[in-house]
Amino acid sequence: MALRAVLRNKCVLSGLLYQRSSCSSHGRVCATPVLAAQQRNNSSSSPKIDVNFDQSTGVAVMCLQNPPVNSLSLDFLTELCIGVEKLEMDKSCRGLILTSSQPKVFSAGLDITEMYGKSPERCGEFWRAVQEMWLKLYGSNMVTIAAINGSSPAGGCLMSMTCDYRIMADNPRYSIGLNETQLGIVAPFWFKDTMTNTVGQRTTEVALQLGLLYNPTEALKIGLVDQLVPEDQVLATATQTMTKWLAIPDHARAITKSMMRKPTIDKLTSNREADIQYFVNFITKDSIQKSLGMYMAMLKKRKA
Amino acid sequence: MALRAVLRNKCVLSGLLYQRSSCSSHGRVCATPVLAAQQRNNSSSSPKIDVNFDQSTGVAVMCLQNPPVNSLSLDFLTELCIGVEKLEMDKSCRGLILTSSQPKVFSAGLDITEMYGKSPERCGEFWRAVQEMWLKLYGSNMVTIAAINGSSPAGGCLMSMTCDYRIMADNPRYSIGLNETQLGIVAPFWFKDTMTNTVGQRTTEVALQLGLLYNPTEALKIGLVDQLVPEDQVLATATQTMTKWLAIPDHARAITKSMMRKPTIDKLTSNREADIQYFVNFITKDSIQKSLGMYMAMLKKRKA
Amino acid sequence: MALRAVLRNKCVLSGLLYQRSSCSSHGRVCATPVLAAQQRNNSSSSPKIDVNFDQSTGVAVMCLQNPPVNSLSLDFLTELCIGVEKLEMDKSCRGLILTSSQPKVFSAGLDITEMYGKSPERCGEFWRAVQEMWLKLYGSNMVTIAAINGSSPAGGCLMSMTCDYRIMADNPRYSIGLNETQLGIVAPFWFKDTMTNTVGQRTTEVALQLGLLYNPTEALKIGLVDQLVPEDQVLATATQTMTKWLAIPDHARAITKSMMRKPTIDKLTSNREADIQYFVNFITKDSIQKSLGMYMAMLKKRKA
Repeated sequence: MALRAVLRNKCVLSGLLYQRSSCSSHGRVCATPVLAAQQRNNSSSSPKIDVNFDQSTGVAVMCLQNPPVNSLSLDFLTELCIGVEKLEMDKSCRGLILTSSQPKVFSAGLDITEMYGKSPERCGEFWRAVQEMWLKLYGSNMVTIAAINGSSPAGGCLMSMTCDYRIMADNPRYSIGLNETQLGIVAPFWFKDTMTNTVGQRTTEVALQLGLLYNPTEALKIGLVDQLVPEDQVLATATQTMTKWLAIPDHARAITKSMMRKPTIDKLTSNREADIQYFVNFITKDSIQKSLGMYMAMLKKRKA
Repeated sequence: MALRAVLRNKCVLSGLLYQRSSCSSHGRVCATPVLAAQQRNNSSSSPKIDVNFDQSTGVAVMCLQNPPVNSLSLDFLTELCIGVEKLEMDKSCRGLILTSSQPKVFSAGLDITEMYGKSPERCGEFWRAVQEMWLKLYGSNMVTIAAINGSSPAGGCLMSMTCDYRIMADNPRYSIGLNETQLGIVAPFWFKDTMTNTVGQRTTEVALQLGLLYNPTEALKIGLVDQLVPEDQVLATATQTMTKWLAIPDHARAITKSMMRKPTIDKLTSNREADIQYFVNFITKDSIQKSLGMYMAMLKKRKA
Repeated sequence: MALRAVLRNKCVLSGLLYQRSSCSSHGRVCATPVLAAQQRNNSSSSPKIDVNFDQSTGVAVMCLQNPPVNSLSLDFLTELCIGVEKLEMDKSCRGLILTSSQPKVFSAGLDITEMYGKSPERCGEFWRAVQEMWLKLYGSNMVTIAAINGSSPAGGCLMSMTCDYRIMADNPRYSIGLNETQLGIVAPFWFKDTMTNTVGQRTTEVALQLGLLYNPTEALKIGLVDQLVPEDQVLATATQTMTKWLAIPDHARAITKSMMRKPTIDKLTSNREADIQYFVNFITKDSIQKSLGMYMAMLKKRKA
């Protein structure tokens, strides 16, 4: 338990190295300072997401603040889903911008500790939350824009891909992609479908098999992100882009969005329990648990 | 009725401004002079499409001449469908080129007056004609080439996309795209499918949500058109390209074309009545009728 | 029968001209010298494929040596399928590189003589072997790389497209594509599906209708091949690329590959007999037989 406690919220399915928590927030404009967020994080009731809704523009900014790397834990996903649902039901909220308060990282993906040494029930609960995050974001009626101000591997890439538009910081040290195979695991069919809808069949086939992580320039070239801007302009550009999208009548835009995405969403909705069962069976295998254990040990060693 | 009479054939679902009818035809080579076509248009029995079939080449040129902007009215669509069907049944006709006799515009799309203040029955009849146009052109056994010598928004873009090849005038003032959402309405699923088949899922997702109109250079870049040429060479290039396509044995080419398009065509064929019902329910809503009324008033004001 | 005997293994569905058999092998590294292979070819029991499996790397190189142009005859396909199956069942074999020992050609496609003047039963047997080749290669759990060191039209292009990665010699005289319509025949739906998965719907629609053959630069541009290298580096590059692919855990990569390709494979598997029947009915038609006869006569004349 000690090991798990140490690694909690810090082991992620992405191969991303630990971030030094002493990093400043580099001019990030999220409402809550990073340091405060990190301190509050010691309490399980502290918010891992800062939601800033501007009634005058109809735009909410969700700032992910789950130090050190916004790993997608069960708590974090639950808070995210509740937050998105609240905004979705508020008719005055028309647009949602997702960004990160953490330096260098947008989100490092699924939290490994949620999958290591856990009961099948708990693993199933976790996976249902991952599904729910995707269903809520990919099927949102709001305009959704990802302001990707750091690396975004694995589950972080998935979250980015659910958005209507992706703006990434033009920093060659950042990367984005579904790199699951590099860790010996497999991106499920709805990760695959989301990527295929974004960059096409052939690019997805190569990217998923090799678990490729792309730097921003490469990501722009294959269409995994839509625009690159200097790091300090990511959120401002997202806000400007949002204005353009909100110029379109909501009703017509939302019906059009649903028409484009519904078949992909229906596929998961009608296979949800089977997908959970498949995940639980896979992740609780001895061989996979052993792999995850070795991976976590390696991460711990790197940090030390 | 007076308003409708004035606007008839002039209100289109595209946001295209009125064209000055005094414009010359800029060297357009359609058989019927523009002026004559415009004069004849006063009579409902005058042809809105000039069909010029060359037995020696096996190629027919259909020149759209429904002033001022080739809006797709019920009469116009009916004439178009009959014309295409005649050519389709004539085994000596192997290729069809679609072009416009109107200055600056290929086709400005569906005729709004067909959808404003009309009975549900009449709206349904109109929509069936739009479907029929798409079914006939997208499923044609002939080689079809769009010689896009002007702007081609909304229904005009759809008509262009049904063709096997698209050549557009390289004039930055022209635009092409499915801009329905900009008017608060939604491109139906088969418009969406046709665009997805042409430019892919992701580009279509953005284009349809934002109702994007592309200039020729942008349209070429995303693959919405295949080739740009100077304005006075559009039809000549279409004719040369047709020769290349007709070098392929008809039988093998037509089976191949059908194999590529049949799933998309079958989707509409088996949902045709439901699609009509959906359109009629949507377009006869008070809110939509009000929007259309305001849009038409704006167009009328701009013209004045 | 004399004509057929002469043309056997030399008439291919690609329009490729006969290669002079006196050509040297241009530094090709296949284990069996071309000349020896050609001599052995006189006996029906001689191997048409040289399989070189390196236990230390886990990589097998299959060198096609069916002079003069690696046409896909029933014998050749049968040998290929048996060879692939053996490697597939050998757990120590993780990667497969396909290349050619013949100068200037990777594979010129299906052997016309298998389709001309043959009984329906024999045509059906041949077509089943073509299906089997595709099923085995497209569904392989191994990493498959095509080292395309020469032209690769029709069935040769199909075989290349089954691989995970395609490296082509950067020689402008070489070409690749599904050019079936140029010969008056039609690429079946699973050829079409494979190409659509590789280069997308719109490019496939044009390519298949016109039966386009692309030079290497064009093929790279549309994504039909992944990389161009100088002719003498094709196999070495394939070997290096294989190392990169084998760095990914086999299990995760193979499941991912299957997830991407299974729907396409299932479509043929569940329509296999109907597809054979369709082919046999088509190819045994008098008109098609006449076309093939004329084509073979033209090839013979060109050779003379």
